[in-house]
Amino acid sequence: MTADKTSLTSSPINDQLEELHRKFSKVVDGKVASHIAELARANPEWFGICIVTTNGGIYEAGDTRQEFTIQSISKPFVYGLALEDHGRAEVLKKVGVEPTGDAFNSISLDPETGCPRNPMINAGAIASTGLVAGATPQIRLGRILAAFSRYAGRELKIDQAVYQAENATGHRNRAIGYMLRNFNVLDEDPMPVVDTYFQQCAILAHCRDLATMAATLANRGVNPLTGEQAIRSEFVESVLGVMGTCGMYDYAGEWLYDVGMPAKSGVAGGVIAVLPGQLGIGIFSPPLDAKGNSVRGIQVCSALSRRWDLHLFNRPGDGKSVVRLRLNAAEFNSSRVRSTNENKVLREHGRRIQVFQLQGHLVFATAEYVVRALTECVGLECLILDFRYVISINETAGLLFHDILCRLHEAGCVVLFTSLTNNSPLRRLLREQLGDRSDDLFRTFDELDGALQWSEDRLLARVMPDVTDTNIAVSRYELLNGLTREEAGIVQKFFERRDFAAGEIIIEAGEPARELFLLMRGVVSVFLPLDDGRRKRLATFSPGMAFGEMAMIDHAPRSATIVADTDVSCDLLTTGKLTALGAVHPKIKIHILENLSLDLCRKLRKANREIALLV
Amino acid sequence: MTADKTSLTSSPINDQLEELHRKFSKVVDGKVASHIAELARANPEWFGICIVTTNGGIYEAGDTRQEFTIQSISKPFVYGLALEDHGRAEVLKKVGVEPTGDAFNSISLDPETGCPRNPMINAGAIASTGLVAGATPQIRLGRILAAFSRYAGRELKIDQAVYQAENATGHRNRAIGYMLRNFNVLDEDPMPVVDTYFQQCAILAHCRDLATMAATLANRGVNPLTGEQAIRSEFVESVLGVMGTCGMYDYAGEWLYDVGMPAKSGVAGGVIAVLPGQLGIGIFSPPLDAKGNSVRGIQVCSALSRRWDLHLFNRPGDGKSVVRLRLNAAEFNSSRVRSTNENKVLREHGRRIQVFQLQGHLVFATAEYVVRALTECVGLECLILDFRYVISINETAGLLFHDILCRLHEAGCVVLFTSLTNNSPLRRLLREQLGDRSDDLFRTFDELDGALQWSEDRLLARVMPDVTDTNIAVSRYELLNGLTREEAGIVQKFFERRDFAAGEIIIEAGEPARELFLLMRGVVSVFLPLDDGRRKRLATFSPGMAFGEMAMIDHAPRSATIVADTDVSCDLLTTGKLTALGAVHPKIKIHILENLSLDLCRKLRKANREIALLV
Repeated sequence: MTADKTSLTSSPINDQLEELHRKFSKVVDGKVASHIAELARANPEWFGICIVTTNGGIYEAGDTRQEFTIQSISKPFVYGLALEDHGRAEVLKKVGVEPTGDAFNSISLDPETGCPRNPMINAGAIASTGLVAGATPQIRLGRILAAFSRYAGRELKIDQAVYQAENATGHRNRAIGYMLRNFNVLDEDPMPVVDTYFQQCAILAHCRDLATMAATLANRGVNPLTGEQAIRSEFVESVLGVMGTCGMYDYAGEWLYDVGMPAKSGVAGGVIAVLPGQLGIGIFSPPLDAKGNSVRGIQVCSALSRRWDLHLFNRPGDGKSVVRLRLNAAEFNSSRVRSTNENKVLREHGRRIQVFQLQGHLVFATAEYVVRALTECVGLECLILDFRYVISINETAGLLFHDILCRLHEAGCVVLFTSLTNNSPLRRLLREQLGDRSDDLFRTFDELDGALQWSEDRLLARVMPDVTDTNIAVSRYELLNGLTREEAGIVQKFFERRDFAAGEIIIEAGEPARELFLLMRGVVSVFLPLDDGRRKRLATFSPGMAFGEMAMIDHAPRSATIVADTDVSCDLLTTGKLTALGAVHPKIKIHILENLSLDLCRKLRKANREIALLV
Repeated sequence: MTADKTSLTSSPINDQLEELHRKFSKVVDGKVASHIAELARANPEWFGICIVTTNGGIYEAGDTRQEFTIQSISKPFVYGLALEDHGRAEVLKKVGVEPTGDAFNSISLDPETGCPRNPMINAGAIASTGLVAGATPQIRLGRILAAFSRYAGRELKIDQAVYQAENATGHRNRAIGYMLRNFNVLDEDPMPVVDTYFQQCAILAHCRDLATMAATLANRGVNPLTGEQAIRSEFVESVLGVMGTCGMYDYAGEWLYDVGMPAKSGVAGGVIAVLPGQLGIGIFSPPLDAKGNSVRGIQVCSALSRRWDLHLFNRPGDGKSVVRLRLNAAEFNSSRVRSTNENKVLREHGRRIQVFQLQGHLVFATAEYVVRALTECVGLECLILDFRYVISINETAGLLFHDILCRLHEAGCVVLFTSLTNNSPLRRLLREQLGDRSDDLFRTFDELDGALQWSEDRLLARVMPDVTDTNIAVSRYELLNGLTREEAGIVQKFFERRDFAAGEIIIEAGEPARELFLLMRGVVSVFLPLDDGRRKRLATFSPGMAFGEMAMIDHAPRSATIVADTDVSCDLLTTGKLTALGAVHPKIKIHILENLSLDLCRKLRKANREIALLV
């Protein structure tokens, strides 16, 4: 990664790669492939290392832009294409998946069926090429090139000289082609298939291409740099499966033991290694060992694995981190402003409303943790599953959520999802599974706040009578608490009565704040206008409460828009009237200010408690 | 998992296991092992499935408490013991790690060295048993039993009848023992070693034991139910490596392709499978296929892998989730109460203080994401790395943090760690790497709030003069803002001056609140006493500010203790005096109440902004 000029520091990861590069530059064992002159001309000093992570980090050292032919590294990618074209079951009928313990060019056909033992030996690779769909060899090759280009994130080309040279000398591969024809593994003229195979091996790539291709396999088939899907996710595990057991020829067992990453090497000196979920490695160094693997390539993979603890089998557990926040409505509430009584009810009964804010990837192990916590919940009435921080969910996790959803519904608990976009795989899966029952079984909200308010309202409605639809007496305004009836009567003369129809705007954001409102009847909501034209609800008020008082106090212009949710009646108290009241009845104004301070004080205490819960 | 009587619902995971159990109960293929009568007597109907997750979930269906002999499933665990006793290099000299493609009882010695090809065939297993340290066969067996018991979380015993029968008929294994002696793979009398091998195979376990043992391997060697370390973490990848390529005899390639989990089977009908980081599976069903693997065991593993998407090579990326919160001091601040001017400076320059709250496991892929984000930071002066939600950190991640720490230090950025306990592996590693320089290179704080305050103070000190040490004029009390000099003089008469020495308690939690304090000189902090005797800092105040006003407003008893951080002078205003002031000078009291409301209002707005950042 090139350090940005304005950034504070360089990357220690890049420096470690440079250091490894220097160290292994001194290794001079091995011989450059010499079976064709084009490969024999490779400079044995060429040496590049590149790592691409699944979240788009790129680290490079050495000759990472020197192109070379991909050779056998093409095999797993073409095998993936065959799987996409025919499915696992059909492909398994033609090519096995057992390691042979034999060398790369051994024919290794099953004595009974004639099927190649695995797709990483030449016979299995040629059979895989024969399985790539397409009416003509040109179309097949075009599809192979297109797929490889998706993996690499740039358009790849064929080295015609290498292809011609391989074609001129590749008699053994032609023999394999006819053996495959003999056993009907290939059911057509094998020569065009072998020709396509020569061409796929002659595709030019550089070290960074290899790392990107490997990272695409690590990232469930999605190129982490371009975001393009290079292979359907469901087949990635099969491609990595054969790389894991057969990728390094007769070195496979030791490789998985020592390096612990599925890998593949090519005779031109390329090596790729894949750490699923994490990263792809590409190395290029032409000198090969006796088994046909790049000497430095193997040593660097091994060193990286040890140094960075990349072994596939050494993974920490990842269940618990899935729950980012677990809250209940006794300790954390929606932005709806509640009366003292309502707050008391929420504190007492709020544990019946639970929020699980989830994060990261939902797969079996992470979903299991959530599902277990849910089955252990006692006395739950509303469950809010907040998906705002969820990155992905697979079908297994989706089905578990479906199951728990149905069970909770039966047990009388309402399930609310938030931040579950319309095209979320979970939403699609729930619609498929539940059909028309979807609407009964769960609710969705854009934001946690809305879901929490809905749940609180439901809880409060069970416990407390609804008063939003009748005019309340002025003496019940919280701001006038503790005033005598006579004093309240005096204050009332300073009010201005206003009615608003449902949907009407009471306060527009940006206006100067010259008054506070006392809500006599109905419900109002505070919204923040967003840049994209939508609006975010900040708070909701019910009768008896004051709103708009904060802007009046700090003389800020109105920061939000306030809308009548229902038909609404309000009493307005303007700054001027409040000053006038103070001039004539200072004790009453003192009382009102004390009530105001008390209200702000309670809200601030609650906000501080909530912050402590969240950090 | 047994459903708790009080819990809302049962687990869908358990139900899915039950369903699988019913489905595969119908499979009647295979034959119970008959080479000894004790095994031949097994009921072919016995069938148990158990799953244990790395975070302690347990799911069971069928005969999960029926004991049986562990047989070849003992091999990887004894191999692990050999690795712990001698290290990888020494063990590799005696036993290879290449799959053979041969059957379980093939002798498969390397023709040159005479070493068994891998530790999962009998020859390699007997060689592994020979490598277990101990002066006598009794001691060795005792160590094996103790290790297995740690894995299972209960004391395991040997089935003497099975052991005697195996011993009576195990001539082939004795032949192997002498072959190993012949090649000096065993360098002592092979018969006691073979005898220990017979006994290790006759250890009794049930299905839940198997799942727990497998989950212990999935959990880096720590039994997830007891928390006990059964094998050193560094050797777990090697044990799983040989299980991955050689665990299912000549079925290994297909197994890794299809099921995608390292696994091991035993001739009594047990099977274990391990999904690193996630879970362990134990299955018991005596009828075996021709290759010696439990028929139902294989089918259930395969079904579980497909159904729950457990394939090892199918992993989502896990980098991004490592950052739980990213904040800066322009948008989020410590609980230290700041003056209007200080808040303005923080809003303008606060981006120079950045907070990364990390979570989960720090390994290469997750640390890389953080390190990359850090190298891209511009103009950073203080970096706070909050480890409160970090579960584990491996050495690789630790070294990356060390590297970035040194680079940031050189670039003039101060690094602060929070919630990094004294025995954290990162702290140990930093001490090792940095020695005496530790104190220069980073600071540690118990809590994010303290680190954030320190960073803010540092930033403010650069920009603003320090006034905490001189008496300020009464007219500079924020609460008296806007009063005339004459009015301020009137108010002053209602004050009571108090001095406190550094460390003195000003307010004790639990006391009734009868006054507010105006800070004239020095600094005070608010602490919440915790149950464990420690205290948590809630806020800090500097001269000019009021404290203790909230409890006075809402008449709550003091919720926290306030301590003088330095020598302190205060003006006290009691409730009584404030009332008296109002009676004589209502306009002044109105003014004070308006200032109080304004202050509360600003604090509430800020708290609400912060909550919106955090959820």
